[in-house]
Parts: sequence; C-alpha cells; structure tokens
Amino acid sequence: MDKILIFGHKNPDTDSICSSIIMENLVKKFNVNAKAVRLGNINKETEYVLKYLKIEAPELIEKVEEGQNVILVDHNESAQSVDGRDEAKVLAVVDHHRIADFKTIEPLYYLAKPYGCTATILFEQYKQNGIEIDKTIGTLMLSAIISDTLLLKSPTCTEKDKEAVKELENITGLKSSEYGLEMLKAGTDLSTYSSTEVINLDAKEFTADTKKFVVAQVNTADIDDVFSRREELEFAMEKEISDKKLNLFVFVITDIINTNSKIIALGSDKSIVEKAFNKKLDEFDSMMLEGVVSRKKQIAPQLLEVAK
Amino acid sequence: MDKILIFGHKNPDTDSICSSIIMENLVKKFNVNAKAVRLGNINKETEYVLKYLKIEAPELIEKVEEGQNVILVDHNESAQSVDGRDEAKVLAVVDHHRIADFKTIEPLYYLAKPYGCTATILFEQYKQNGIEIDKTIGTLMLSAIISDTLLLKSPTCTEKDKEAVKELENITGLKSSEYGLEMLKAGTDLSTYSSTEVINLDAKEFTADTKKFVVAQVNTADIDDVFSRREELEFAMEKEISDKKLNLFVFVITDIINTNSKIIALGSDKSIVEKAFNKKLDEFDSMMLEGVVSRKKQIAPQLLEVAK
Repeated sequence: MDKILIFGHKNPDTDSICSSIIMENLVKKFNVNAKAVRLGNINKETEYVLKYLKIEAPELIEKVEEGQNVILVDHNESAQSVDGRDEAKVLAVVDHHRIADFKTIEPLYYLAKPYGCTATILFEQYKQNGIEIDKTIGTLMLSAIISDTLLLKSPTCTEKDKEAVKELENITGLKSSEYGLEMLKAGTDLSTYSSTEVINLDAKEFTADTKKFVVAQVNTADIDDVFSRREELEFAMEKEISDKKLNLFVFVITDIINTNSKIIALGSDKSIVEKAFNKKLDEFDSMMLEGVVSRKKQIAPQLLEVAK
Repeated sequence: MDKILIFGHKNPDTDSICSSIIMENLVKKFNVNAKAVRLGNINKETEYVLKYLKIEAPELIEKVEEGQNVILVDHNESAQSVDGRDEAKVLAVVDHHRIADFKTIEPLYYLAKPYGCTATILFEQYKQNGIEIDKTIGTLMLSAIISDTLLLKSPTCTEKDKEAVKELENITGLKSSEYGLEMLKAGTDLSTYSSTEVINLDAKEFTADTKKFVVAQVNTADIDDVFSRREELEFAMEKEISDKKLNLFVFVITDIINTNSKIIALGSDKSIVEKAFNKKLDEFDSMMLEGVVSRKKQIAPQLLEVAK
C-alpha cells in the first residue's frame, strides 16, 4: 500500500502538527506505512516546540489525489481538511471536535473523545497499547495539551487532560507552568505578520444551512496591542468575506493571561454574533466576552445554534 | 442527569439488541445511569438468544424527546435511528458502519472500527478496561458476532472478530458451530411473517444525493423457498416504494449455508443495481450474486457508488 498521509486541519495549530507526528509514530509501531504532513504554515508557537525538540516540521501538502489513503487528526469537517479529501479514502480519524460534514462510503476507524486536546486521546492510546512514550513524543503531547487548553485554564480542559499533563511532566521533566508559558508567549508574537496573515493564523470555516462563516482566533498577552491594528485587520477581514463569499467573519483576540476575549465581527450576518452572546456590537464592530477563551466550546456552538 | 437511552438501529438485528444490553452493562460499571431500549420488534434469531439466556428484551421506544441524552450502538445514520434523534443529544456512538448523515453541535465520544460486529468492539472495550465478561454478556457478544458475520463466513469478518469468538467460546463454554448454527436457523423461519413483515425484518434506508433507497435482507437455508413468495413480496415492495417515495427497493435473500444471495430489485432506479453489479436483472426483476452475503460490504457501497 502507498504511504498513508496523516494530517491535522488547515491553518494548523500546535495540536494539529504535534498530533500528526505522534500519530505517525503510533501507527508505525503497528508496521503501518504512514507519514505526517501539514496543510499550512507552522505558527510561532509550534515553531517554538519544534525548535525546542530540534525536529523538522512535517512536509507541506496542498491537496491529495483521488483514492489517497489518509488519516485525519484534530479535525473531521471537510471545509477544514485537505483539498481533494472527499475523493480520498479516510482510513481513520482521531479527533476531539464535533462531527459535521463528514461522510464515508466504507467503515473506518474513528476515535473521538470530548477532551481538551487530540494529543490527550493519543496519550491514552499509547498507554492502552503498552507503547512507551519517550521524551520527544511526551513533549509533543504536553505542548499540544498546553496549547489547546491554555495551560489547563480553558473550559474545554477535562480531568483527562490534567491527568495526562501530570504524567507527561514526569516523563519529560518539564514544568508546564514554565515551558508552557514560554511556548504560549512565543505564539503571541504577531509583529512580523501582515493583517491578512494574522486573521488566517488560526481560522476555521463553518457552515450552517446556507450560511458560511469563519471564526479566527489569536492569543495575546495584551488585547489592546492587537486591537490597535483594528483598521487594517478589518480591511483584511472584509477582503476575506468578499473573496470567500462569507456571511460572517469573527476575529477573536484571546488574552491568555486573564482568560478573556475581545471579538470583532463583520459581514452581512453579524447580527448572529449579537444574538449568540445576547450583547450589542459596539461602534468598532467589537464586543468583550469575559471568561471566553474557547472557540470550540464558547463561541462556535453558540454561533451555530443561532445560524442553523 | 436523566437516564441515558442506549439503542441500535431500527429493525433491530441481533447485534443491535445485544450490543445495547452489553453497552448498558459497560457504562454502568462507570456509574453512568443508562438503559438499553429498542426501536423495533425482536426478530426470531434474537428471540432465540434472549430465550436461551432467559433475559427480557429491552423496552420498545417510538421516539425521543428534544434534548434526550442518547448513546447509539451499531448505527449512526439518521434515517436508521430513532425518530427525534436530530433534536436529541448524542453523547456517544459505538459502531462498525460507514459514517454518513451524522452531525453534532458538540464534541462527543465516537468509537468506530471496521470490524464485522459492534459487539467485537465492545469486547475489546471490556478487556481494555479490565471489566469481567460474564457468561451472559459473553453469550450476547458471541451471538451478535455469529449473526453479523454469518458464523465468521462473511467478508466483513475480520481477524479481530475471530479472536473474540475464540475467547468467547472459552468464556461461555459454547461451540459457535453448534449454538451459532441453531441461532442462525431460528432466524430463517419466515413462515409466520406476512410479506410486508418479511421485507421489513432487516431493512436499511440509504440516501445518495437526492436518491432514497432501501436494502432489505433475510437469511435462509433455502433461497427457492423464500423466492416462491416472490409475487406477494414484490407487491409489498411496490407499496413501500410508493409510501416512502423510494427510488429503489432491493430485497436480498441470503443463503447462509452456501453463502450466496439472490436479490429482487424494484423502483424507478433499478438500473442502479444493474450498473453496480454489471449484470442484467432477469424477467423476475432478480439476479443471483455468487459469494455475496454482506449488505454492508458487498451491496450498499456498490449501490452508493453508482447512485451518488
């Protein structure tokens, strides 16, 4: 069989990249010929992890050919996946998101758990199968969990994520409060990115009925610092709305220190945001969401509920 | 939390009923308040199993209320599930079918493996969690696997199903070649069923684009015996096509001894069948399919491929 390609979602975050590599390592233990690849640029947070471990980023791919065998990690929705996915053969999925816009012709392996991070599910798979977690794999797991749960502070964080972090700290000898904070901070440096890059660093597309929208998120230690670029960011958002025929673009600026978010919403259906959070957008098309840090749990379901 | 309802697909087969009970037993070990129910009548094969074990059939339900917490086993597609499912909250799925027409708003547990039987996946879950499989649970598992794999002869049967059967024979003290054959034979007695009942005993609905079709299957030790009822069966099929606005109804008569099937196809799109199997329907709207016994592997994907 040709090499199976393993990848996370477009605009890969640390979980998507790390879990692809962790999954490659796992399936190779079962003599499966597979290779981790990625669907987009490495962000600065992930770059910090890879540099720390002195390992290369997976190869970038643009699309897959018809019939290509693939394994998805950290996503399942078609819009977030590789171009050509619907004509590929999905052998397996490991994910921690809702299931939507996903279908196959044949049975497959599908493992989803409502945890804070894909890497936590893979951590359990290693343990269940009696496979040793070495320092490199352990650091990849720890990094992904810290990233997805914002140092265990996100409401998406479960007891299973916390248990994994505890054990992974022992395996790696790392303290998540030190290593993790450095990693998260590395990810907040947006200074070298253009506005278009900023709004695409971690953007996810959703569809509900006929409505198509994007929720993009950046982490920061200073919301005002990012918000000072509002005018150019809005210009870039308007361009995305027009290019991709979106009904709504929501840009979420998340303060990882104080665990709040400020959002900017544009598009013909920006009233969805007001209904979803029962709050008016101000004159800058923005609103503050206290205690909100999780797109998956505190933003996307609320928008989908109103939009459907 | 209100009691979680666990159920298999409509027109429940032995795997759907047994896996619901097995799953109830499993989640109760984790102090989850759940109850197996069923979405239709118990067939004669399953009746044989329940009588053998002297256990009651799960309670019959017609629909679920909005917001009801549910766990699905042995299916995921909406058309095969309980009425009201789209407004219920799916907490978990354990299944061995393709994924289609399934979506959630929130993350969930989803465990699918491309095995011959749901009960084999549950068998592995018991073992991984160190939960004892007693004689009753073991017999339910064994019965489900024998049923779904036609005594390990179906092409859907995997090494994992075979390994499970071997271990379950030890646990239960049953020989699958004896107990299993009796069980399968009990399921082939169609004499007391009306034609409408026969074509609905194990009927599954599929949709591909705008096309809607049903593939129903019965097991027999004598194809001619079932086929002798062709005229009344076709009458019942025509009625289903008209009532449910189907494009196609395929009735599969499977010889469990010689592992062949004869199919009868009716509906405006019966040419799909001819294209799928590259063979003409004869003057009785029927064709023989040598070596074909599995709807899931040898019939449904082929029809879906042509219909899509």
